[in-house]
Amino acid sequence: MAQDPLVVFTPSGRRGRVPSGTTVLSAARMLGVDLDSVCGGRGICSKCQVAPMSGTFAKHGITAGPEALSEQNAVEARYDAKRGLAAGRRLGCQAQILSDAVIDVPPESQVHRQVVRKDADTHPVETDPATRLMMVEVAPADMHAPEGAFERLSAALANEWAVGTLEADLPMLAAVPAALEAGGGRVTCAVFADHRGGPARLTEIRPGLLADGIFGLAIDLGSTTIAAHLTDLASGSVVASAGAMNPQIRFGEDLMSRVSYAMMTPGGAAEMTLAVRTALGTLVAEVAADAGVAPERILEATIVCNPVMHHLLLGLDPVPLGQAPFALAVSDSLTLSARDLDLGALPDAARIYVLPCIAGHVGADAAAVALAQRLDLRDDLSLVVDVGTNAEILLGNRDRVLACSSPTGPAFEGAQITCGQRAAPGAIEAVRIDTETKIARVRVIGCPLWSDDPGFAAAIAGTGITGICGSGIVEAVAEMRQAGVMDASGLIGSPEATGSDRVRADGRTWEYVLHDGSATGGAPIRVTQNDVRAIQLAKSALYAGARLLMDEMGVDRVDRVVLAGAFGAHISPLHALVLGMIPDVAPDAVTSAGNAAGTGARIALCSRAARAEVEAIVGRITKVETALAPRFQEHFVAANAIPHASEPCPELLRVVTLPDVAFGAAGGREGGRRRRRA
Amino acid sequence: MAQDPLVVFTPSGRRGRVPSGTTVLSAARMLGVDLDSVCGGRGICSKCQVAPMSGTFAKHGITAGPEALSEQNAVEARYDAKRGLAAGRRLGCQAQILSDAVIDVPPESQVHRQVVRKDADTHPVETDPATRLMMVEVAPADMHAPEGAFERLSAALANEWAVGTLEADLPMLAAVPAALEAGGGRVTCAVFADHRGGPARLTEIRPGLLADGIFGLAIDLGSTTIAAHLTDLASGSVVASAGAMNPQIRFGEDLMSRVSYAMMTPGGAAEMTLAVRTALGTLVAEVAADAGVAPERILEATIVCNPVMHHLLLGLDPVPLGQAPFALAVSDSLTLSARDLDLGALPDAARIYVLPCIAGHVGADAAAVALAQRLDLRDDLSLVVDVGTNAEILLGNRDRVLACSSPTGPAFEGAQITCGQRAAPGAIEAVRIDTETKIARVRVIGCPLWSDDPGFAAAIAGTGITGICGSGIVEAVAEMRQAGVMDASGLIGSPEATGSDRVRADGRTWEYVLHDGSATGGAPIRVTQNDVRAIQLAKSALYAGARLLMDEMGVDRVDRVVLAGAFGAHISPLHALVLGMIPDVAPDAVTSAGNAAGTGARIALCSRAARAEVEAIVGRITKVETALAPRFQEHFVAANAIPHASEPCPELLRVVTLPDVAFGAAGGREGGRRRRRA
Repeated sequence: MAQDPLVVFTPSGRRGRVPSGTTVLSAARMLGVDLDSVCGGRGICSKCQVAPMSGTFAKHGITAGPEALSEQNAVEARYDAKRGLAAGRRLGCQAQILSDAVIDVPPESQVHRQVVRKDADTHPVETDPATRLMMVEVAPADMHAPEGAFERLSAALANEWAVGTLEADLPMLAAVPAALEAGGGRVTCAVFADHRGGPARLTEIRPGLLADGIFGLAIDLGSTTIAAHLTDLASGSVVASAGAMNPQIRFGEDLMSRVSYAMMTPGGAAEMTLAVRTALGTLVAEVAADAGVAPERILEATIVCNPVMHHLLLGLDPVPLGQAPFALAVSDSLTLSARDLDLGALPDAARIYVLPCIAGHVGADAAAVALAQRLDLRDDLSLVVDVGTNAEILLGNRDRVLACSSPTGPAFEGAQITCGQRAAPGAIEAVRIDTETKIARVRVIGCPLWSDDPGFAAAIAGTGITGICGSGIVEAVAEMRQAGVMDASGLIGSPEATGSDRVRADGRTWEYVLHDGSATGGAPIRVTQNDVRAIQLAKSALYAGARLLMDEMGVDRVDRVVLAGAFGAHISPLHALVLGMIPDVAPDAVTSAGNAAGTGARIALCSRAARAEVEAIVGRITKVETALAPRFQEHFVAANAIPHASEPCPELLRVVTLPDVAFGAAGGREGGRRRRRA
Repeated sequence: MAQDPLVVFTPSGRRGRVPSGTTVLSAARMLGVDLDSVCGGRGICSKCQVAPMSGTFAKHGITAGPEALSEQNAVEARYDAKRGLAAGRRLGCQAQILSDAVIDVPPESQVHRQVVRKDADTHPVETDPATRLMMVEVAPADMHAPEGAFERLSAALANEWAVGTLEADLPMLAAVPAALEAGGGRVTCAVFADHRGGPARLTEIRPGLLADGIFGLAIDLGSTTIAAHLTDLASGSVVASAGAMNPQIRFGEDLMSRVSYAMMTPGGAAEMTLAVRTALGTLVAEVAADAGVAPERILEATIVCNPVMHHLLLGLDPVPLGQAPFALAVSDSLTLSARDLDLGALPDAARIYVLPCIAGHVGADAAAVALAQRLDLRDDLSLVVDVGTNAEILLGNRDRVLACSSPTGPAFEGAQITCGQRAAPGAIEAVRIDTETKIARVRVIGCPLWSDDPGFAAAIAGTGITGICGSGIVEAVAEMRQAGVMDASGLIGSPEATGSDRVRADGRTWEYVLHDGSATGGAPIRVTQNDVRAIQLAKSALYAGARLLMDEMGVDRVDRVVLAGAFGAHISPLHALVLGMIPDVAPDAVTSAGNAAGTGARIALCSRAARAEVEAIVGRITKVETALAPRFQEHFVAANAIPHASEPCPELLRVVTLPDVAFGAAGGREGGRRRRRA
């Protein structure tokens, strides 16, 4: 008797013998090969397409020809005629294995695809969405076996797709009979089954086949801005992104002022809840329209945010978050319906996963950063800082992960800076000061030229130079320190002491003119002594938080620093080190993770395993409370100097020379005044 | 070494030795004795009160004195001083067992109490509510262990009460921190954990102790009337009942006309859904007000209804129920939130259990009757008929249970009867016709006297005699048959043929005057030939349904008949047999079960075990479809005669003589006309 055919699947390499006549899809399932299907093997969804290979495969010990698979049967021929199969492609559910075969499963036929491209820094994540489309054929109603339509549907899903207990809200139950009627018993269901292993939920039902196009939203709800990334749940790819200002800004710029508003104003918290939900609803409608996606196809969302936003979004009282012990109403992850949050644009049945909070000050956004960065999988010690109005700081490695938050204030976002503005076209984002001439050249958002490049004036004519954004002010202050315009204490020197006519009087202190604007008819853009003080406060808070975690970890240095957040993506590592925002480390060990919180939201959106992981990670993170640590204040004061009053910075000094100037006694206007008084 | 004390609990008889110093509550838990507690042993709820017994108990081999238990400790003394303990009572959580003891657990200290009094016919049911009150002490917020308030509450419930995974809707989550704050960490939770064993749900939280008074509603949603029984969930006792007309009557008197309305009128189903939900909301508010119970204390409800009402209540399309194959949208039981049904008066978090439907024609009301009657636990063969606009019919025993429904129409409810009316004061509910004089005496609702008793006229002066209700018309027709005023074919004889001046011409037919009204100044109350025809149609449908089930079961007789439904409670067994509504059986084998559907709703409300039971019973019931059974029509026609055209009725004839009259050829006006024409 001849042996059963041997089949090898690539790229997985899984192999085995299957009875002759077995379909490729059945063989894949028998051998545990990841091969997609929505229609359940009916030859209509084409999700199970494979590419049989011909030739001699010495590695596999197989010689395969075109006869390894059966010829197109009627079902496959009908699909090919109607929709067209690409050359070399076969429908896995129809093609039968007749003799030894090597079969390639192309990426688009795999259920589990990579969500985030693997690079040096990033842990790869495969799609494993909680919501999947499943087509079934449901038995017709039978008077002698009077199960309801929903029970017959559940039985079909159990039988064809091994779905366990199925639940549905009433409106979804109500939709079942009409869909069965319209589809002649054949319907496609969106079935949500999450990492917790409870009952599955029916979240959408359509007559006939719906093979493509269900979406999810990864939402990063910040104090200042809201970002939403519309993502194809099957592929994990982002199809559109949109942002909006958080309308709660009108109740308070920073979180604590919103908490105060909730505390002082009856109904204030509810007012803010309504505002943010309405804004989210609008944003959802907008991003769906941008992508040309019907909102009813958006069946999931994940939300990351800080604890105050978390409570305001969910309708929980934020007031306890404003004072010790900073008690959260709920800390674990939540899985809700869109209906629970009144997110108008989403279908009521859409499932919303809210990532867990780490503590009263360290939210789901920090959890998302931990998920995106997975410092807990690395041997080296990583410091991850997500810079915003609050900085979320994580420190750790395989053994232990610590977290804290630190109130940096809005200076890093360009707020409370004399010429500060949000990152937008026209804002200075990069600064270089010539150490000889002490003259600055700048680059503005929206234009790749430096201000001393030919054609700069013409290139920026549309926007002008309107102010300095967060990364611009960091670079400006760092460059002022490097150029000797400002000393280690943060004091700007007089024109005489610095030898620069770019320094001008500003009341009782000095200010430095980054860009005088006269050539382009604009107002001068300058950095005042107060601006430097604001940046010093912000960077000291950030540094002190990081140092506190290092104390707790018992280390004096870290192996690498990751700057996360939209702002982090634009800070130059060298300037961050010169400013002393972060502990001393080799500049090439500082990397940017971009919007890591948003990435974490996207990973959790596309992967059930990632939801389980983030919950496990959060459970293992040790929270360090900055507000009550006596050493925080100590670190904060010592970190006021630029880069630092007492800590050496050997790594930085390997690549940069910092001039040894001091304007406090002689050269500074403040110092000068003091001297005159004495 | 002395032996550990021996303790015997009564009435359970459970016994065992426990270490000296064990509290009575701990001993009860160790020995599996049912002893209640809400405060978790803190000596404040007094739910664990016990009565220690003194004396020599030969049966138990124990001699116990007052020293068997420890003296009142400070906690118990404080409770006694503040609230007062009845003589002989002790707090089980404080009193310690020091030597051999016999301890009685009074009924009010047992969690599991009997819901429905056991009598000859009824299966006993013990309370085992899905919602229980649990007091806990929750750890304060701790900055160094930053679990949320909800997580700390969950941990306390797990620790003190062995509650598993706890879930809550957002508004309930939001209520947790404030309750903890107000109660100083001590709160009482209502926790719902049902028979399905999924996660528990928090449905109420109060600061401090709430030992008493959570309620449930057993709702019997009929086509014509809605009844709600407000029930103490702990004791199972009904504290108030209220009824209302089903407002859907304005869309159609019977179910099929409502289905037609839904089919013909766009938005018609939604309109009916809104109407019934609004009416339920009003009824809930009313019954709560009647009982002086705050609606927010009503944390559960169960609903029984027929399939059309079921779909209309739930917002499911009823149209498929109007034609074969009578497909239900959902047949299994459902557990919903009050929010899902917009039942205004109930708290959103209240849990609603909707009993399962048996089939497209046999609803959750029939399932509730099966639960209340448990014919599946009996050796003898029971026929249970729930008489209403539709009759639900169950036939079965330990081996097999069959069910069908039969469209009896509204005649049994007094509708479509010339002088018919709903059962209300002034309606004739009982009739006796003297076989000699052919004169009727009647009794009306609201007055215990018969119309020939002295003082009758005065007694009914307030209401008058306004019409005939359902049980009245059944008795009237049966009595007319027994008195020979009407023959077996249902024809009323002429005055000459019957020898009665109570028979009068009514157009081309004869009518019988039950009550001439002249003495009381009212209109005569009479039974017309058409009324008899309407009753014949109704009783034939009921009988034919029962016979069809008997055919399916392969039997010619049943052992007992149970008449259920409000109407069933008022029918006299003998008259039902004379009329031939039910198969021949000894009159004393016919009993009334009262509102068995409502009883079933009440049982399911108070017992998780009963919910599992009703689901199991429904799964085992064989549904018989009357609409498609050829023999139904045959049985229907044969059952038109009174009592029956062909079936002998030996049991009936043992106690009653039926005159052998026939008016068709000679005595009847119809017959007479025909004769004249010939």
